[in-house]
Amino acid sequence: MKRVTELSATKDIEVRFSEVDSMGILWHGSYVNYLEDGREAFGKKYTIGYLDTVAQGYFVPLTQLNMDFKQPLIYGDSAIIKTTFVECDAAKILYEYEIRNKKDNSIILTANSVQVFLDKKYQLVWNIPEFFVEWKKKWKIIE
Amino acid sequence: MKRVTELSATKDIEVRFSEVDSMGILWHGSYVNYLEDGREAFGKKYTIGYLDTVAQGYFVPLTQLNMDFKQPLIYGDSAIIKTTFVECDAAKILYEYEIRNKKDNSIILTANSVQVFLDKKYQLVWNIPEFFVEWKKKWKIIE
Amino acid sequence: MKRVTELSATKDIEVRFSEVDSMGILWHGSYVNYLEDGREAFGKKYTIGYLDTVAQGYFVPLTQLNMDFKQPLIYGDSAIIKTTFVECDAAKILYEYEIRNKKDNSIILTANSVQVFLDKKYQLVWNIPEFFVEWKKKWKIIE
Amino acid sequence: MKRVTELSATKDIEVRFSEVDSMGILWHGSYVNYLEDGREAFGKKYTIGYLDTVAQGYFVPLTQLNMDFKQPLIYGDSAIIKTTFVECDAAKILYEYEIRNKKDNSIILTANSVQVFLDKKYQLVWNIPEFFVEWKKKWKIIE
Repeated sequence: MKRVTELSATKDIEVRFSEVDSMGILWHGSYVNYLEDGREAFGKKYTIGYLDTVAQGYFVPLTQLNMDFKQPLIYGDSAIIKTTFVECDAAKILYEYEIRNKKDNSIILTANSVQVFLDKKYQLVWNIPEFFVEWKKKWKIIE
Repeated sequence: MKRVTELSATKDIEVRFSEVDSMGILWHGSYVNYLEDGREAFGKKYTIGYLDTVAQGYFVPLTQLNMDFKQPLIYGDSAIIKTTFVECDAAKILYEYEIRNKKDNSIILTANSVQVFLDKKYQLVWNIPEFFVEWKKKWKIIE
Repeated sequence: MKRVTELSATKDIEVRFSEVDSMGILWHGSYVNYLEDGREAFGKKYTIGYLDTVAQGYFVPLTQLNMDFKQPLIYGDSAIIKTTFVECDAAKILYEYEIRNKKDNSIILTANSVQVFLDKKYQLVWNIPEFFVEWKKKWKIIE
Repeated sequence: MKRVTELSATKDIEVRFSEVDSMGILWHGSYVNYLEDGREAFGKKYTIGYLDTVAQGYFVPLTQLNMDFKQPLIYGDSAIIKTTFVECDAAKILYEYEIRNKKDNSIILTANSVQVFLDKKYQLVWNIPEFFVEWKKKWKIIE
């Protein structure tokens, strides 16, 4: 199996008043919402969203989330989240994220996440679900 | 049926950094969390919490929430929420809330909420559930 | 002074996974964010947003927020918020809100809010600020 | 300079209804709030909280946050956050976190964060602020 194409999706966001802290900058915890927005945009574009995986019989909770905050965003700023699928042989879903300020294209945040598969009884699934292998083939991530 | 005793519960809160907005004051939306904390403290004290009602076969979503913001809270402030049950003959749960600054006992917010009963199929229940009548008698809210 | 035109703005929203509670429906507190989104969309359209009022030397905190929850929204639903300016002679900003499900146009929530004017020292302003009177004339809310 | 004592603080938390997602488990983003609660508890205990650093003329925004989600928490669970200061020679504040379920002491989450110093003009400070060196000596983190 080798990586054939790279899949990514973008999503525009605007910093809300309620997301800004007393320093006038986006509170760091708000980025978790933004990354979820990015993941949902990816899921919608490539039919691998939350409801798609539930329909296949799986929950896909996060087991890891790493965020590097590079520059702040302030109220009124517009930004763009790019979510990229990262191929891996394990029964995991990996994404990398990049948020850029739309004003000057400067990098605001880089991040990555790991999700695992749980079955309907919330038991961890060790083998890659068949539907996920098919999904990767469909989008030419693997051959 | 006449009101016999008044039931209320209190809950201490501390304003979190993430709840404060760029004006340095508690963002108004954060009070919705505080009121839920107050309701949960009441539910725990009088065995009418979310899990208690679910155990009886009912969901109790809010249908109304009215908030009057009197004074701001700032980061580091401590406050106390008082949640009082309001008796009413309908198939509804009514609460009144009062949040006071612990520093000087000044009133920060007054609020009230209305909840209804849904059965397990999410259908509105028009008659007061039997368990709720028993609950009121147990706590001498009605005779 | 009589009301001449009605001003309103609309804003599309999509229910996020993180906004849904364990009953699978949008948590009621999330509507406070939506209403703020609606108010910001109005403010942007009619140049009366948070930054506009700050530029004029005023903060405009909420003093009242009333919400009637009519129907639930679920994850994946799209909705539209309509924010309408309500004319009043006092030194207050009043809005009415209506959120509708885009699927069937059913009403999800109605709400209204009151904001007051604070000066830069956070003191309540009793007289209508001049800039606000001009703003009303500009948009033909008053003659 | 060698590490002399280890400083840590603990904070109890209860999972709120509003923090639980549609899978019935604590939404992963809510942990960011919990970690902030842990950091604030540490800051209060050892006089190195947000207001303490601001009083010294510094903002200390996060530049990194890494979270490993081990087990879920559900509504009604109680947990304990342990926040430990990690000594490092750079102009940074490092913490490690551990959240455990109070029921069985099982590990729910491990995390670590990095904060930097900004001066009042929001410029990055490259040298360790004098007050921070004194603080370390006071608490016998360094000799």
